[in-house]
Amino acid sequence: MSVTKPSLPKGTRDFSPLEMVKRNYIYDTIKTVFKKYGYAEIQTPSMENLQTLTGKYGDEGDKLIFKILNSGDYLAKVDEQLLASKNSNATISKISEKALRYDLTVPFARYVVMHQSEIAFPFKRFQVQPVWRADRPQKGRYREFYQCDADVVGSPSLLNEAEFVLIYHEALTNLGLKDFDIKINNRKILSGIAEIIGKPELIVDMTVAIDKLDKIGLDGVSKELLERGFTEADIEKLKPVILLEGTNEEKLESLKSVLAGSETGLKGIEEIETVFNYVSKLTTDNSKLTTVIELDITLARGLNYYTGCIFEVKTNEVAMGSIGGGGRYDDLTGMFGLKDLTGVGISFGADRIYDVLEELNLFPTSAQQGTKVLISNFDEAAELFALPLLQQLRDANIAAELYPASVKLKKQMSYADAKSIPYVVLIGEEEMQSGKLTLKDMVSGEQQKLTATEIVEKLK
Amino acid sequence: MSVTKPSLPKGTRDFSPLEMVKRNYIYDTIKTVFKKYGYAEIQTPSMENLQTLTGKYGDEGDKLIFKILNSGDYLAKVDEQLLASKNSNATISKISEKALRYDLTVPFARYVVMHQSEIAFPFKRFQVQPVWRADRPQKGRYREFYQCDADVVGSPSLLNEAEFVLIYHEALTNLGLKDFDIKINNRKILSGIAEIIGKPELIVDMTVAIDKLDKIGLDGVSKELLERGFTEADIEKLKPVILLEGTNEEKLESLKSVLAGSETGLKGIEEIETVFNYVSKLTTDNSKLTTVIELDITLARGLNYYTGCIFEVKTNEVAMGSIGGGGRYDDLTGMFGLKDLTGVGISFGADRIYDVLEELNLFPTSAQQGTKVLISNFDEAAELFALPLLQQLRDANIAAELYPASVKLKKQMSYADAKSIPYVVLIGEEEMQSGKLTLKDMVSGEQQKLTATEIVEKLK
Repeated sequence: MSVTKPSLPKGTRDFSPLEMVKRNYIYDTIKTVFKKYGYAEIQTPSMENLQTLTGKYGDEGDKLIFKILNSGDYLAKVDEQLLASKNSNATISKISEKALRYDLTVPFARYVVMHQSEIAFPFKRFQVQPVWRADRPQKGRYREFYQCDADVVGSPSLLNEAEFVLIYHEALTNLGLKDFDIKINNRKILSGIAEIIGKPELIVDMTVAIDKLDKIGLDGVSKELLERGFTEADIEKLKPVILLEGTNEEKLESLKSVLAGSETGLKGIEEIETVFNYVSKLTTDNSKLTTVIELDITLARGLNYYTGCIFEVKTNEVAMGSIGGGGRYDDLTGMFGLKDLTGVGISFGADRIYDVLEELNLFPTSAQQGTKVLISNFDEAAELFALPLLQQLRDANIAAELYPASVKLKKQMSYADAKSIPYVVLIGEEEMQSGKLTLKDMVSGEQQKLTATEIVEKLK
Repeated sequence: MSVTKPSLPKGTRDFSPLEMVKRNYIYDTIKTVFKKYGYAEIQTPSMENLQTLTGKYGDEGDKLIFKILNSGDYLAKVDEQLLASKNSNATISKISEKALRYDLTVPFARYVVMHQSEIAFPFKRFQVQPVWRADRPQKGRYREFYQCDADVVGSPSLLNEAEFVLIYHEALTNLGLKDFDIKINNRKILSGIAEIIGKPELIVDMTVAIDKLDKIGLDGVSKELLERGFTEADIEKLKPVILLEGTNEEKLESLKSVLAGSETGLKGIEEIETVFNYVSKLTTDNSKLTTVIELDITLARGLNYYTGCIFEVKTNEVAMGSIGGGGRYDDLTGMFGLKDLTGVGISFGADRIYDVLEELNLFPTSAQQGTKVLISNFDEAAELFALPLLQQLRDANIAAELYPASVKLKKQMSYADAKSIPYVVLIGEEEMQSGKLTLKDMVSGEQQKLTATEIVEKLK
C-alpha cells in the first residue's frame, strides 16, 4: 500500500469538533422552530437517478450536477464511435445513471409524487442535508454545502406565508441576531406593473434594472431600462414604483393606484395585505414586526419559478448577502406528473449565518462545551482512585473524562484547554489521603478542595 | 421539460417524518452517550479524492467505491487508444478523480493526518454520516447507509477499551434493550494459539473454522481444520480452546495454561484482564456486566486489521446479526504517512438497531411526537378567533398548528391522525361565544371545555 499525502477535493471541508458544535447549534435552533410550527423532517438519498435531476436547473445547472460513474464494466456497452468522437456530453448518459442531488427542492418534489398516497396534505416538511454542485470554488462557495429548507405543499392559504415570516423572525432572534430585514414581494405585483406598462414580456428585464436602484441611482436605472427595451414614457409610468417609499401601508396605497388597472397586480397587493394581517394577528409585539418586514418591490429572487409571495432575509449587522429566501410556486410536482399542487417554502443560508454569528461573536459558550470535567492522571494509584469518581460523574450525566495516561500535568492541562473543558480534578498523594480533591476552574484559575460527592453536586 | 415518472436508485431510501423521528431517536441516544464519555463530533466531506480511498479496502472493496465523473469535457485528455480498448478499469483514473466515502475510518485517518497539528491527542472523536457502497442491494443491505463510529487515537490505555464496553452497555440499555452480549476477544490470544500449534500463518483459517462450532459441532470443525491444513495432533491441542467453557475467569484460567508458552498469547490475556478490571472499577453493578461481557475466543471480526482487543455486540431478543463491533488497530494513519499512532474504535449498526427496536416495539411514543396540538378551522371567523391561541401556544413552546383551510372536519381529523397529533382544539360558534374551547384528546377520545389559557397550561 503506497503512502499518499492526503488532501481534500477542492471546495469541500472537514468540520472539527468546535465547528460541529457551532453548526449543530445553528441547525438545532432552526429545526426547533420548524417543529414548533408543525414541520416534520424528512431525508432523501444523496444520489438520485440522473434522469430525475436533468433538465430541472437549466443547461448551466445540468453541467454543475455531479454524475456518478456506473459500477462494473461501464464502458462495455458504449458505442465505439461515440467513444472515438470523445463527445463528453453525449457520453454521460451512457456511463452514468445516477447523480448527487443539486438542491433539496427537486428531490422533495420527487418524494411528494412517489409518496403521495401516504402523505396527509397539507404536507409540512423540513429537510437539512448537504447538496453538491460542481461550481468553481471561491470564498464562501463550496462544492458540498448544507441546505436547510422548510416547505408546505397542498395548501394555498396565506397563513403559511405569514408563518414563514414568523419562523424567520423567531429562528434568527433565537440565534441572537438583532437587526435584520425580512423582505417580501409578490410576483403578481411585478406582473401587474409590467402589464400596466404594456410590456409583460419584459418583467425580468424590468426587475433586474429596478433592483439596481441602490447602486446606480434613478438615472442609472432609467438608462438601463432604455437599453432593455423600455421607452421614456414607460419609465415615467414606472417612476412612482421605482421611487416607492414610506411604510409598508403607504407603499401598498401607492401601488393600489398605480395598479388599479391590473387584476393580477391588485391580487398581488391583496395577498401581501392578507399576509400582513395574519402576521399582526399572530404577534403581540406588532411594532417589532412592522420594523422587520419590509415590502420591497425590487425583490425579484427566483422570478422564473415563484408565482406568489417572494421572501428574502438580510442582516444589517454584517455586510453579507441574503441569509435566507423563498417563495410560493404553483407547480412544484408537475415535472413528475402530479399537477396543481401548490407549495410555498423558505430556506436558511446556514453557512452564511455561521459566518455572521462568528463575526458578531454570538455563539453561546454553552454551545462550545463538550466534556465538562477532566480528571488528571498522576500515576497508577491516582488512576485507580479516580475510577469511582469518573463513574459517579457519568451516573449524574456529567460528561467526564479521565486522562488515559500518567503523563506530565502540563500536557494534561493543554488537553483540557484544547477541548475547552471548564473543570479539571487534580488527584495527588495528599488528595488521596484526605479524600478532598482539588477542583480547578479552568476559566478563573480558582482551585477548591472538595470531596468526590461535592464535586458531583457542584458540576451537576 | 418532459415528465419523468420518478423512482429511486436501487439500494437507496427516502425517510418519512415518522422514520426520521425514530432514526434521530437512535442517533441522539448514542451521541449523548458518546459525549458523556468525552467524544466530540467531526464530519468529513462526502467525497474524497479517489486516490485517498483506492487500495484501502482490497480489490473487491475498490470495485464497490462509487466514483464521481469529472466535470466539464472529461474525455478531452483521455488517450484514444485507451478508449478504443474499452478497458473500464484502466479508464477510471482518467475520467474520475473523486469518489464517495466507503466508510468513516479511512476519511478519519486522513482527517487525523491533515489536522495533526491542531489536534490535542488522545483524540476522541465520533462521527455519524452516510457511506456509499456499490454492493448488490438486498434485504437489510443498502447502497447508502449511515455509520455511527467512535474512535480514540493516540492512547494505548486499555481504559479506552473498558469505556467502549460501558458505552455499548449504556447506549443499548438507554435504547431499551435488555438482553444483549458484548463479546470480547483479543487478536494476541488468537496469535498465541496459532503460535502454540506451530502454525501462526494459519491464524485466519483456524479462527474461521472455530467460529463455526455452533453450527457444525466439534466434528465439523475438526474436519474443516484438517481441510485447512491442520493435523490431527494440532486439533488435539486446539480442543481445550475450541471447547472453552465457563465464566470469563474460568476461560482466562484455562487459556493461561494453554498459552503458557506464548508471550504474545499471555499478553492478550493480560490485556483482557486489564479491561475487565477497569470495567469492574467503573460500575457498581458488577453482576450486570459479568453477565453481559463474554470472552469469546472464536470472535475473529476484522482480523486483518485489528491488533488487540476485538468487540462484537449481539442482541438475544431478536434473531439479527451483530449490532455493533470494533477493536484496536495499531497503525491507522500509516497509510497516510503518520506512523505509530494507535487507535481503538467501535461502531453501532444503526439500521439493524432500528429493526430490533421496531420488532420489540421499543420506540417511545414521545419519540414519535411532532406537533402537539392542531387547532381546527371551521370558517373564517373561527380561524380569526384561533390565531391568538396559536400564538399563545407557540409562545409557550408548544408545537402547534392551525389547519390552513376550512375543509370538512373529518379531513382535519384524519390530518391529525396521520401526523399522530395527540390533541385537537375544536372552535365552533358556541365555543367562540362562551370562550370555552373544546380540547379533544385524540388517544382517549375524551373532550374537555377549557379556556385558551387553560389549554396552554394543560399542554405545557
